Amino acid sequence: MQDALSDFPLRDEEGDVRPEFLHAVADALEDGDISRARELTLDLHEADLADLLEILRQDDRARLIEALGEDFKAAALPELDEAVRDQVLEEMPPERVAEVLQELESDEAVYLLEDLDREDREDILSKLPYFERIALQRSLEYPEDSAGRMMQTDLIAVPPFWSVGQTIDYMREAGDLPERFYEIFVVDPAYHLIGCVALNKILRSKRPTEMEAIVDEEMHPIPVSVDQEEVARQFERYNLNSAPVVDEDGRLVGVITADDIVEVVQEEASEDILAMGGVGGESVVDTVWETTRLRFAWLVANLITAIAASIVISFFEATIEQMVALAVLMPIVASMGGNAGTQTMTVAVRALATQDLGPANAMRVILRECAVGLLNGLLFAVIMAAIAYFWFGSDGLGLVIGVAMVVNLFAAALAGILIPLGLDALDLDPAIASGVFVTTVTDVVGFFAFLGLAALWLA
Amino acid sequence: MQDALSDFPLRDEEGDVRPEFLHAVADALEDGDISRARELTLDLHEADLADLLEILRQDDRARLIEALGEDFKAAALPELDEAVRDQVLEEMPPERVAEVLQELESDEAVYLLEDLDREDREDILSKLPYFERIALQRSLEYPEDSAGRMMQTDLIAVPPFWSVGQTIDYMREAGDLPERFYEIFVVDPAYHLIGCVALNKILRSKRPTEMEAIVDEEMHPIPVSVDQEEVARQFERYNLNSAPVVDEDGRLVGVITADDIVEVVQEEASEDILAMGGVGGESVVDTVWETTRLRFAWLVANLITAIAASIVISFFEATIEQMVALAVLMPIVASMGGNAGTQTMTVAVRALATQDLGPANAMRVILRECAVGLLNGLLFAVIMAAIAYFWFGSDGLGLVIGVAMVVNLFAAALAGILIPLGLDALDLDPAIASGVFVTTVTDVVGFFAFLGLAALWLA
Repeated sequence: MQDALSDFPLRDEEGDVRPEFLHAVADALEDGDISRARELTLDLHEADLADLLEILRQDDRARLIEALGEDFKAAALPELDEAVRDQVLEEMPPERVAEVLQELESDEAVYLLEDLDREDREDILSKLPYFERIALQRSLEYPEDSAGRMMQTDLIAVPPFWSVGQTIDYMREAGDLPERFYEIFVVDPAYHLIGCVALNKILRSKRPTEMEAIVDEEMHPIPVSVDQEEVARQFERYNLNSAPVVDEDGRLVGVITADDIVEVVQEEASEDILAMGGVGGESVVDTVWETTRLRFAWLVANLITAIAASIVISFFEATIEQMVALAVLMPIVASMGGNAGTQTMTVAVRALATQDLGPANAMRVILRECAVGLLNGLLFAVIMAAIAYFWFGSDGLGLVIGVAMVVNLFAAALAGILIPLGLDALDLDPAIASGVFVTTVTDVVGFFAFLGLAALWLA
Repeated sequence: MQDALSDFPLRDEEGDVRPEFLHAVADALEDGDISRARELTLDLHEADLADLLEILRQDDRARLIEALGEDFKAAALPELDEAVRDQVLEEMPPERVAEVLQELESDEAVYLLEDLDREDREDILSKLPYFERIALQRSLEYPEDSAGRMMQTDLIAVPPFWSVGQTIDYMREAGDLPERFYEIFVVDPAYHLIGCVALNKILRSKRPTEMEAIVDEEMHPIPVSVDQEEVARQFERYNLNSAPVVDEDGRLVGVITADDIVEVVQEEASEDILAMGGVGGESVVDTVWETTRLRFAWLVANLITAIAASIVISFFEATIEQMVALAVLMPIVASMGGNAGTQTMTVAVRALATQDLGPANAMRVILRECAVGLLNGLLFAVIMAAIAYFWFGSDGLGLVIGVAMVVNLFAAALAGILIPLGLDALDLDPAIASGVFVTTVTDVVGFFAFLGLAALWLA
């Protein structure tokens, strides 16, 4: 497919884009060598073209799209990161975007439209033919991230009394079939879903067989308004390759295939990872200003936590003046608590996301976490008591840090499991806010337990 | 399908297992009421049965499997979490496991066998019929987590000169076809892959058409030894629903479908999330001892980091004695650095995993992170200088903490991006170790900058 380029590939053997390729394209674009830029990029797969566009500089992106002109592959657009996609769509006149939308499958067209401003979107929609416009508008009416937004509306549905032969003839003659499909749906006259017939079953059946006789009624139909995270869970749980989407009345409205689910799972996992790291909604193509702004908010939340911990320390200024070794050791207690709390919280947040943690086993997991917190608390109490004793030659100090360690690791376990469970029960995303709350608990408890015990001992 | 149970469902509307259902099953098992336990669980989908087994107590699991006997659904086994699966397999006699393996698809059978002890595995394999045994042994020879382990070896391959009619007749007559398949592969006499024909294309073509005429040669064949993470990337990048697997000589050896990829993506994301939280390889069904042991190792690594930070503090004991406000404020500098570093690191680790960060854009991302670190450093320098000034009434202290903040947030950005990139370049998993190194840098730099500047100022 890419014979001309086989000795100058886009990717290295690890699948990363090669810097040499990027620079060759960027140099051609900056030198105005349109034909060289076209030669390098014309035969790229749409996914590869998208990856290349993402790492090009902003002005080079516009130049490349202009250079490709009508040869720009529409299918590359849905593969682009949101920030880059918006920029690229803005570079294209609405007529061209409308053309591009018609080349795409319906779920991809919706995906492109949903992030645009209302005005831009209406402008583009108005340039589409009637039926395409209506279909897209209907999909856009479903809630964001719902099955209705993800589904493909091109599908094949036949009545139960059709024979296999009739169905095959219909497919041979019909012109507007979906590009890829894996099953045929069987519906009643009101389009209520009866079941589906996998293509391999049709191929293996004799022509006179009625569809009714080979229909598989054991399906996992997905309600159209369900969130994509739940759709992904259904696919994962039942190892689905595709699933029909039905409206409130059980009427067939679309189909979702596993390749879309791969994207959703990756996206949801990224969201959780970034949220837990305090960088929600960020991507490597964002600008410096945008990134600074997004991270600033999270750092402010963390600053408030840190100041709360400092206020606790300030209660014990006199104690620290009495024994400055306390200032040396106190970060250890807080840091161990923070890490133990993060461990518990990470397991809890992930298990909530994958539904391995739910009401049926919450109590058992809470008890287990408390036991683990207590055990590790005792182990590190002994270790830290020994270290403090040998470092500062004080058995009292060893005892104080040991007890503080047990208290803080137990508090870390409790906070690490109860905070995510509580946020989840309140229908808040535990991945986003758990971290700040858990660290607040472990910092405050850690400093208070250590310095408070020290104050009692020194008093 | 579950009419008898429709008024007593396993799951609530959010998809979590209902505690009432769990308790009903557990009570029946503990009361020895076999028929009630069977009645509740006999019609469960294999995925639901697996979820139920996971949250049952260990002894109840064995009882349920005994109660179900021959009716236990083999397909539930690959759905189980590893720790539970091993326990369940141990409860079953090897003959029964061998029976179960024959009911499964080849990739699932491999998945069950690969985690067993060598001895148990040989024992079970020896009870299988010759051809099944050879096929499984060959799959097990591929490296763990490779395409060879994931692939399904049941597939349909025909020569290019066959007609569509011949192919359809073959499928109608052959008895041992795979249960689900979406395309037919076209191979030469040496089984080299020529291309594939989607089933819908066969259905739409006339019987005399030669397969050669409709074969699609634009494929993304996957080398059999490639890691599952790379397989998932290929599926994601090219929106594949299935892909052929080929050996070193380009011969077709298997096929991978997108439903398996959904599992891989979920698994790889879980691994990264848990590794970043310091709880690698853990699951909610592990025992207290196992969990304590796994977490202990990570906490020891963190303790070493914390002690390194404490040693830095101990250099400045005299300075802290001179001005105890330093002890109150110093955790703020370290904590802000730790959080800013974690932000950068999280973006870097995730972008490396999704290949949004690679050699072609590494330098640009490093520069961006440094700029963001410097900007946020300046912003928080001003904020903290003001807070310190109003809290302790000292403009010198404000200046010291402000400068320390800029230094530490800049160091955090550098460490947050360079450490994951460095680990990745060394072929180490950046998700596992980045956190400890980044925190070490931000703690040490934070305390050193703040206390060191304070010492200079107070001297």
